Amino acid sequence: MPGTSLAIRNTTLVTQDAERRVVEGDLYMEDERIVSVGGKAPEADRELDGTGQVVLPGLVNLHTHVPMGLLRGYGDDMLLEPWLQERIWPAEAKLTPESMRAGADLGHLEMILNGVTSYLDMYFMESGPIADSCRAAGLRGWCGEGMVDVGQTPDGEANRKLKEIEDSIKATAGDPLITHCPSPHGTYTCNRETYEASARIATEYGVPMHTHCSETRTEVYDVLENQGARPVEVLKQTGALSANAVLAHCGWVTKGEVQDIARAGAAVAHCPVSNLKLATGGVCPVPELHDAGALVGLGSDGAASNNTTDLFESMKFAALVQKQHRWDATVLPAQRVLDMATRDGADALKRPDLGRIEEGATADLCMVDFRRPQLVPRHDAVSDLVYAVSGRDVSATVVHGRVLMAEGRVETLDVDAVVDAARAAAAGLTA
Amino acid sequence: MPGTSLAIRNTTLVTQDAERRVVEGDLYMEDERIVSVGGKAPEADRELDGTGQVVLPGLVNLHTHVPMGLLRGYGDDMLLEPWLQERIWPAEAKLTPESMRAGADLGHLEMILNGVTSYLDMYFMESGPIADSCRAAGLRGWCGEGMVDVGQTPDGEANRKLKEIEDSIKATAGDPLITHCPSPHGTYTCNRETYEASARIATEYGVPMHTHCSETRTEVYDVLENQGARPVEVLKQTGALSANAVLAHCGWVTKGEVQDIARAGAAVAHCPVSNLKLATGGVCPVPELHDAGALVGLGSDGAASNNTTDLFESMKFAALVQKQHRWDATVLPAQRVLDMATRDGADALKRPDLGRIEEGATADLCMVDFRRPQLVPRHDAVSDLVYAVSGRDVSATVVHGRVLMAEGRVETLDVDAVVDAARAAAAGLTA
Repeated sequence: MPGTSLAIRNTTLVTQDAERRVVEGDLYMEDERIVSVGGKAPEADRELDGTGQVVLPGLVNLHTHVPMGLLRGYGDDMLLEPWLQERIWPAEAKLTPESMRAGADLGHLEMILNGVTSYLDMYFMESGPIADSCRAAGLRGWCGEGMVDVGQTPDGEANRKLKEIEDSIKATAGDPLITHCPSPHGTYTCNRETYEASARIATEYGVPMHTHCSETRTEVYDVLENQGARPVEVLKQTGALSANAVLAHCGWVTKGEVQDIARAGAAVAHCPVSNLKLATGGVCPVPELHDAGALVGLGSDGAASNNTTDLFESMKFAALVQKQHRWDATVLPAQRVLDMATRDGADALKRPDLGRIEEGATADLCMVDFRRPQLVPRHDAVSDLVYAVSGRDVSATVVHGRVLMAEGRVETLDVDAVVDAARAAAAGLTA
Repeated sequence: MPGTSLAIRNTTLVTQDAERRVVEGDLYMEDERIVSVGGKAPEADRELDGTGQVVLPGLVNLHTHVPMGLLRGYGDDMLLEPWLQERIWPAEAKLTPESMRAGADLGHLEMILNGVTSYLDMYFMESGPIADSCRAAGLRGWCGEGMVDVGQTPDGEANRKLKEIEDSIKATAGDPLITHCPSPHGTYTCNRETYEASARIATEYGVPMHTHCSETRTEVYDVLENQGARPVEVLKQTGALSANAVLAHCGWVTKGEVQDIARAGAAVAHCPVSNLKLATGGVCPVPELHDAGALVGLGSDGAASNNTTDLFESMKFAALVQKQHRWDATVLPAQRVLDMATRDGADALKRPDLGRIEEGATADLCMVDFRRPQLVPRHDAVSDLVYAVSGRDVSATVVHGRVLMAEGRVETLDVDAVVDAARAAAAGLTA
């Protein structure tokens, strides 16, 4: 919003800055920039009351499939293969641009409600209905166009969508909110040539190379058998294990692969809820990745395997799964998990101006209503954000200095219309 | 509410009856009884609109420490011993009847907000401030007075509180909402004589014997070393492993102990969130307990080790932890988990008139607002209740035919006053 200013008054700021300061006072923004943190803000064009609330950086969902809310609860408690073959793929085959738009609108609405301001997606029709919906919602989207080669692309060739992806990247260069990027589905479904070309595009345009990696044992051993190398190794061999790479899952990676990921500057999108729900068995070695210096963000994965896109819930799962797995309650403490969902996710997207509240940063943030009884008392706001807050407690969401929701009221989308369209679209997919 | 009738109109009823029917229509109640399920209800003294919502039996929290919300977020990410010794016990030592009441009011308020209608507690001052608060809130409480012998009761003697507990049980005989019961803390902190006397009282008065059991490895091996028997075996030897027993946790039980628990008709209160957060390591063998025919309910444990008391969240954790632990997505499906949180918990408390919506059952129920975008579409209401609903989505709570909350507005407690008092009390404990 050029030429406008925004103030949030009388609040608690969990800044996520370098010192992880928690500051009392006002927050003041001009256009899309944060101008002052704490103290008393000047009068602004728009003012929000933050009394009893906590402002934090907007959450970064580092791995999702935005329109899959349409399939929430459609096939639970199933093994992965029948789930995909009997439920998800037949439903997805019926997707039209209209139903995709309806699903994307629902997904974006949920993000606004849950305090997610940025996301990295992997789906289809990204440059059409998904990007259009993202723009309408006012969110910041990295739209990864999914590519699958198996059964579609001849061996030895790169996926045909790469040209279209490159065109979309060029067409949106300089767009403050939309970034297109290549998203090869996985090393078990894509040709090496697709990874090579995706890596080249990612490097040339400075966009993410978003892929699934080592989600299940089956995947790892199938790739090893068919290609003589494990998934991370295939990425390395194709040049795709770079600083632009965002690898979703990594539940089944070796210590050597942890080092390779860190050395390459690649990031991992940890999706604990989806991993548990699909019973992938492996637990992403987050502490080892941290020790090695790798960036680890948090993802909800699609709503069909979660079945929410509530990153506050994912934070709690992330912390608790590590504690359980290692029999150590001190592992992955609250502050570290909050970092994953904010600044680390932003850094994975090469946007260190996001994911923290500090002077000069870009104004992507959310506000949580700590007046709710479930958040009383407030011994430690960071602990509460990870262990007690629900996405339902978010009262305001701001992206690029623009208020998308305030006092629980969404300002960019017609909630009733989105809900009605999503219901109709879902019925069409599963009929 | 004698002589009053209540109708909920135009809703979806997840009945949790013997056939697990999901019924569309109205629900009609007279006094504390459910009179008709589905169809069109007669005109009632009080009417709630259930359009777009789902009514289900009120949730049963089978293991909690009600007033511990005061210590939510006060000491996270710590090992169990320093957490207890440096944080919890020093704070608890400062509890007065006034602060206990403030904590109980906060805990009861959270239950109403989260759709919990019955709970089994273990704390102190149960017959005073906790029962008083439960009555004021209108909830159904099994108030287990906690007993610890170590350092307080001479060897070979039973805990002195038992007399007072028996008196409280007698004084509240016939009370429809309050049931007092003995709650020996654990086999590592209580004398065998306390268990023997607790078992006798539980049998004589038909009340639960509520205890911690096999929560951590340390506990199991300490008890084995000191008493020559594991905790479940000690319960068996003292007569405390009976149909009245409710054993919280059971994360470290053997296959033989699973059989012993089932054979005795004892129930287990599974507390997945607390177990993970405290990194107890063991995973309660819920499928084996089910196969053996044992009742397993769900508990939040205290808010200090959770840090919510949201049983919808606990349902999701319960399902996902088993899937993760066994690498099998089909284990513990949604319907089975919903049973645990409703009818199985009620059965554990020997109240088969609770935990299901059917003619003649007692009217304890809650209503979830499925119009929220996070619950759209609704392919499967049971799946959504377990995997997508948050306690924040509860719009109405009814206990014993009385409306405690409707349209999100609590009718029995002054929310602002409860919150203010809880904040003040918490500050006093941790100063």
